[in-house]
Amino acid sequence: MNRPKAWSADRPEREQALVGGARLIRLTQAEDMRGSLAAAELGKDLPFAPKRFFVVHGVPSAEVRGEHAHRECHQFMVCTSGSVTVLVDDGSDRAEVRLDDPSLGLYVPPMLWGTQYAYSSDAALAVLASHDYDPADYVRDYDVFVRLKRQDAE
Amino acid sequence: MNRPKAWSADRPEREQALVGGARLIRLTQAEDMRGSLAAAELGKDLPFAPKRFFVVHGVPSAEVRGEHAHRECHQFMVCTSGSVTVLVDDGSDRAEVRLDDPSLGLYVPPMLWGTQYAYSSDAALAVLASHDYDPADYVRDYDVFVRLKRQDAE
Repeated sequence: MNRPKAWSADRPEREQALVGGARLIRLTQAEDMRGSLAAAELGKDLPFAPKRFFVVHGVPSAEVRGEHAHRECHQFMVCTSGSVTVLVDDGSDRAEVRLDDPSLGLYVPPMLWGTQYAYSSDAALAVLASHDYDPADYVRDYDVFVRLKRQDAE
Repeated sequence: MNRPKAWSADRPEREQALVGGARLIRLTQAEDMRGSLAAAELGKDLPFAPKRFFVVHGVPSAEVRGEHAHRECHQFMVCTSGSVTVLVDDGSDRAEVRLDDPSLGLYVPPMLWGTQYAYSSDAALAVLASHDYDPADYVRDYDVFVRLKRQDAE
């Protein structure tokens, strides 16, 4: 396993590739005296049509969530308040991002190992997913995940 | 104009009709030691496929947002942190709801006048919309809106 790629300095103006197809996407922003709006045109910004929307919130900061890959499900994550760190891992390389801005979205393709941690107490992570919930879509064992990735690569 | 229908006491277990086709929808909740998750299956819970996702945040509490109707665009709103009051108005009846819980979603059909106000300082309002942004889809004049509603009813 290589060391995680550092990602903290410059936020993407529009888009930044991470590992294994994951991408940070800068949402379109509109700011004025009445507040801020950050928007994603889903058909243009994402390679999937969302079927499910969920919000993760009230996570104790010591807790780690995720720690799985999806076989087929794509996800798009936006931390709408507070902050959370997301680690994505394609089986050989890793990238770590701090989502701390509602105008920053993270696209996570299928078959990428993902972990979320260091939730701030006020963090809310909004997620759009390409599939309905399906327990069979989860790969929860990291060794199995790495084996599947190697099989894919052969 | 009738007085707004009060809505504050009992939150819906699953769904509650408001005015003009607007509905409050209780999202599926999963809570454990690792935090809370609130989820909507978009194909089942909503009568539209989302094409746009946006987050409204950093709104000064004195500000009022919205104050328009959409001709064709459906919306689904979830206040992922903090709270905001939403007024929906079908031209003859009104309903007012306080969105203060990430497991509470508000479906707003087209041709319903909507206003959002009393944003808490930490409020983030996540919105799924059925259409890409289109200035021509907005009705920004309340009198025009009421006239269009009456034409529809004839």
